[in-house]
Amino acid sequence: MDISSFNPDFQNKEGKNSLPSDWLTELRKGSKQALAKALTLTESTKEEDRQLARYIVQQCVNEGKSIRIGITGVPGVGKSTFIDQLGTYLIKEKNKKVAVLAVDPSSGRSGGSVLGDKTRMEKLVMEDAAYIRPIPSRKELGGVTSGLSDAIVLSEEAGFDIVFIETVGVGQSETAVSQLVDIIIFLLLPNSGDDLQGIKRGIMEEVHIVAINKSEGENLLAAKKTKMLLDTVLQIMPGPVEGEKREVLLCSAQEATGIEELWKEVSELHQRIDKSGWLTENRKQQKVNRLRIYLDSLLRDSFYHNSNVSDAIVKYIAEVESGKIDAYNAAMEIFKEFKK
Amino acid sequence: MDISSFNPDFQNKEGKNSLPSDWLTELRKGSKQALAKALTLTESTKEEDRQLARYIVQQCVNEGKSIRIGITGVPGVGKSTFIDQLGTYLIKEKNKKVAVLAVDPSSGRSGGSVLGDKTRMEKLVMEDAAYIRPIPSRKELGGVTSGLSDAIVLSEEAGFDIVFIETVGVGQSETAVSQLVDIIIFLLLPNSGDDLQGIKRGIMEEVHIVAINKSEGENLLAAKKTKMLLDTVLQIMPGPVEGEKREVLLCSAQEATGIEELWKEVSELHQRIDKSGWLTENRKQQKVNRLRIYLDSLLRDSFYHNSNVSDAIVKYIAEVESGKIDAYNAAMEIFKEFKK
Repeated sequence: MDISSFNPDFQNKEGKNSLPSDWLTELRKGSKQALAKALTLTESTKEEDRQLARYIVQQCVNEGKSIRIGITGVPGVGKSTFIDQLGTYLIKEKNKKVAVLAVDPSSGRSGGSVLGDKTRMEKLVMEDAAYIRPIPSRKELGGVTSGLSDAIVLSEEAGFDIVFIETVGVGQSETAVSQLVDIIIFLLLPNSGDDLQGIKRGIMEEVHIVAINKSEGENLLAAKKTKMLLDTVLQIMPGPVEGEKREVLLCSAQEATGIEELWKEVSELHQRIDKSGWLTENRKQQKVNRLRIYLDSLLRDSFYHNSNVSDAIVKYIAEVESGKIDAYNAAMEIFKEFKK
Repeated sequence: MDISSFNPDFQNKEGKNSLPSDWLTELRKGSKQALAKALTLTESTKEEDRQLARYIVQQCVNEGKSIRIGITGVPGVGKSTFIDQLGTYLIKEKNKKVAVLAVDPSSGRSGGSVLGDKTRMEKLVMEDAAYIRPIPSRKELGGVTSGLSDAIVLSEEAGFDIVFIETVGVGQSETAVSQLVDIIIFLLLPNSGDDLQGIKRGIMEEVHIVAINKSEGENLLAAKKTKMLLDTVLQIMPGPVEGEKREVLLCSAQEATGIEELWKEVSELHQRIDKSGWLTENRKQQKVNRLRIYLDSLLRDSFYHNSNVSDAIVKYIAEVESGKIDAYNAAMEIFKEFKK
């Protein structure tokens, strides 16, 4: 595919999602509009949009230039407020450009979260040097990471120094996200020591830094107790970086305390893993993960956009619904169409 | 494939996972050992085990005979204790057979949860009429639901009246699970009203009944407040069954209060949706979802077990790691091998 084919303005058949001819220049200048357009293409379900999206991502030469930080923790722990504070601090005090990609489980019917996401980072949303975007985690498996992976690379192409990836909760998507980021900060609530049972080891092993959020006022004692417990747990549990002791820090996103100390820890850790070569190794692994994600996406596209297959799907769904054939044999029959 | 090929004892090439010739008879008699063996096969990564597993599932004629109940909520809300109480109640008071399938995010390195899962349902684990099994949610996408779907059907074949599916947290896997169950019970903590922001609409729309767990002692007032708030939220938010008002109940799994009332609500709801035809429609949808899950699994197997593909994957992973080729173009090259 040749970039000139997008000249003067790319339009798909419906004339939507037009892409300015100088999008790559604009994107590299840091245009948030160019970034948003490219991201919209990566999220499209149309095959031609997706092809274009892949082409765009392929042009990116700044992959891996940012520090990619995953923020995880159960709903209600204050992930958005935390990113709001930390991101604003990085812009104002450290002169960084900050992108926030918030993995958002799309609703089957109406989409979006109970109380819109846009207002959740009140301070950061006002900053020129910040870009905030929800990344839909589609029902189709593979949808999460393919879109997210592209979004990270595109944000890096647009010159963002720090890319935060906010995950949904503690579940499947966390493991996928951990394969795309450099450093994972795990947020906990004070007093959540009793509930460690609910924190799966698989996630704890991926975590680089633990922050006990809402460590303020009367929560402070509980936060300190939780820290003590966590310190012990982390000692006996292997972490992602061999020989690296994992820190448990107290902070309050609400009252903006502990944010500076936390960043100090993150950036020192980043320097250490950069120097030791861990980061380079991890980046290699991230690329291999992107390879796997693309493969999955190519495979699914080639299958579900095969017209014999999609005709057979329609036919056999009706037969499965009416009980004429069972799900497994229907799948076998549809699959035969693909093999033709 | 003919069942006689498993006679007298099925063995794969390595002689592992042998399956007794009368496994289907044993399974239908309710043998937990037969069920466990079949489940182990469905979880295998070996193509020949998976083929056998598919064959077994295909023989099942009691799909949909149970009430399938999804239990969801953030880590720490007490899902396991809740299922422990409710399951024991159903066995002792209602003479039911209860299967619990706990979706378990496998650890990348060491597997399992921080404090082993086995001890988490202390009462239920002692009951003859109960079967508890963690279902690994593999890193490979699609792994969750394919294994889970088979596990449900196999449990039904073994005569379990109630199948509980315990999910991990609030994330991607919930939506997948909701496509396989009849009724979803969402557990909340008292005082989680402030954190409704964290509860994504996509999940709330799938929920049939909300239970505020740990509604005991000094939590009681907070629980009542949360109920009031939830009642309002649920009024303005569409639920899975049109015209069905969704109930918010208080309970304490720890103190065994509210469990009987909750079951009354569940079984009445089940009768209503059975009578109205919703359940029949939903079952059709579940079958279509199983079709999709099988298709995905067939597609992935045919791809990743293609020897040209797997050779190319090894080759291109090395080239991506060394920076010789980018992830996207490597994916394209590997994909060409599949198309050959």
